[in-house]
Amino acid sequence: MSSPMPASDDSQRAQALGLIRAGRRFLLTGHQRPDGDVLGAQAALGNLLLALGREVVIVNPDPAERRFDYLEGPLRFGVWDGVGLPDHDVCVLLDFSELSRTAGMAPLIAAAPSKKLVIDHHLHHGSVWWDAAYVDLTASATGLLVYRLARQLGVPLPPAAMRGVFTSLVTDTGWFKYSNTDPETLRVAAEALASGVDATLIYDRLFQQRGMAHTRFVANILARTEYFAGGRLAVVDQPLSERFDSDEVDSDEVLDILRSVRNVEVVLFIRELSPSACKVSARSKTAYDVNHLARRFGGGGHRKAAGATLSRPLAEGREALIQAALEGLDGGTA
Amino acid sequence: MSSPMPASDDSQRAQALGLIRAGRRFLLTGHQRPDGDVLGAQAALGNLLLALGREVVIVNPDPAERRFDYLEGPLRFGVWDGVGLPDHDVCVLLDFSELSRTAGMAPLIAAAPSKKLVIDHHLHHGSVWWDAAYVDLTASATGLLVYRLARQLGVPLPPAAMRGVFTSLVTDTGWFKYSNTDPETLRVAAEALASGVDATLIYDRLFQQRGMAHTRFVANILARTEYFAGGRLAVVDQPLSERFDSDEVDSDEVLDILRSVRNVEVVLFIRELSPSACKVSARSKTAYDVNHLARRFGGGGHRKAAGATLSRPLAEGREALIQAALEGLDGGTA
Repeated sequence: MSSPMPASDDSQRAQALGLIRAGRRFLLTGHQRPDGDVLGAQAALGNLLLALGREVVIVNPDPAERRFDYLEGPLRFGVWDGVGLPDHDVCVLLDFSELSRTAGMAPLIAAAPSKKLVIDHHLHHGSVWWDAAYVDLTASATGLLVYRLARQLGVPLPPAAMRGVFTSLVTDTGWFKYSNTDPETLRVAAEALASGVDATLIYDRLFQQRGMAHTRFVANILARTEYFAGGRLAVVDQPLSERFDSDEVDSDEVLDILRSVRNVEVVLFIRELSPSACKVSARSKTAYDVNHLARRFGGGGHRKAAGATLSRPLAEGREALIQAALEGLDGGTA
Repeated sequence: MSSPMPASDDSQRAQALGLIRAGRRFLLTGHQRPDGDVLGAQAALGNLLLALGREVVIVNPDPAERRFDYLEGPLRFGVWDGVGLPDHDVCVLLDFSELSRTAGMAPLIAAAPSKKLVIDHHLHHGSVWWDAAYVDLTASATGLLVYRLARQLGVPLPPAAMRGVFTSLVTDTGWFKYSNTDPETLRVAAEALASGVDATLIYDRLFQQRGMAHTRFVANILARTEYFAGGRLAVVDQPLSERFDSDEVDSDEVLDILRSVRNVEVVLFIRELSPSACKVSARSKTAYDVNHLARRFGGGGHRKAAGATLSRPLAEGREALIQAALEGLDGGTA
């Protein structure tokens, strides 16, 4: 057990294709707070299966964000009703492999008499519990695995499926910015465009639907930037007096801009939640481990992106976070 | 005269290839304030010509920004010495066709006994003054035309040339975000990565080397945002009092943020150049044609990105630009 799977081998992939070929009724599911790769891969596989004449239902533990509406039709992103699951022959987990990440759906999926198929590009920790897996850790997105699977089946992906593949690719590569963008990613994206996928529409839906307040938000928060340690640490805070409607603004943009500064290694974005609590989002551009930092304050995350909520007033929490971050930079706590 | 050239036809392209084959000493030049497409295309063509055993000198009217240093070696981006030009058989203009955009170099280039070759993807207004042109308005970048030219010559592009092509592509497509990103663009980018181009390094050099002043710049300029026509038009200006070192800040980020607002169709970024002159960068998210707008003020560019320099004080130029933009929005002047 617990053997990390780098990639499914030929026979494992054949098993996965076998389930696709044999199944009649498919249930596709994703992890909590499904992101663009989950939803894109579901649109890709779902529409491929429809083209193959199968019955398909998508049920996720959480609803899809509205900005992904363009992926729907004919399939819809269903949300679990808290009661049961539709009858199905094959349950497909897309972009994850730990059943617990389907929350309340997990015991129902486990108990269902269906075959279980995992399509994923993440490392699995723990024992193998599924019937078949189509996994490759080197794939830039789960949607890319659906693309490969369709090629292996020899079935052309219908337009709605290509739109899903493209969405997966751009979501997980930060629109081709991240280092996982490889030649295959760009080749498949090129094929998607050539097949008629409207990248301009997708970019607009995903990244150009901010409110008019967004510019004032970015201006006000960035104006509060303070640099420490010669610019290696950049800190912004957002007091309650600078509250904005979170549906209208995108705070990731502030973090991205701070990270784009040459000297910056660590970014802290500290929001005042109440007069006695604040919340930090920390980002690292280097080997500096912000997960380590966040854990010192009862939070966590990844090496490059982590967060914590502090039961301290903003000014006090800010001071403590800056001190801790600077100690890490001085000590080279990577 | 003044016939817009949509694309060079076969015989025009053959003429262009003929100059490349016949020339021994090449002078490559670009427009004032050479951008990543100029420099990328120069690196691409220059290194291709070196591989063909030609002598190559790059001389631009203005120096390259430091962030493009990675494109140098073996060729360097020379700057005009204000005196003369090296002897050459063929002078190649990359990414523009109006000789006046080489400023003081223009009369020298015109007077030189060399053949003149234009490689460009912009519309040319005015008479044809060159010996050969390799032009395609539908190409996403001038670097892509160099790629095509190499393919037509049957010569493989050396690594330094592919780095140039990739740089051109990502510069002129906003790292594949803009609507000019077509299948060919992504296919050639995929080929560049497969050939060993380090996209992560290039992204870092181009977009993560901003100075610490960048955050204050973005904050100050965005704080000046004014919306018109219910947010369809967004305008920012930069008076001389808000001067920043242009090596340390990136004004494209301001344009991108303004464009990310849902309602916004047109963005104007107006810089005060002197008490009696200002310069506008205009961007469109829709069918609205900012080239049309820029030409009304003696400038030009593309439908989605254009600019003009106005011999008017900032306040007056700003007012005129806003009025013209609003007329276009009202009239639906696409």
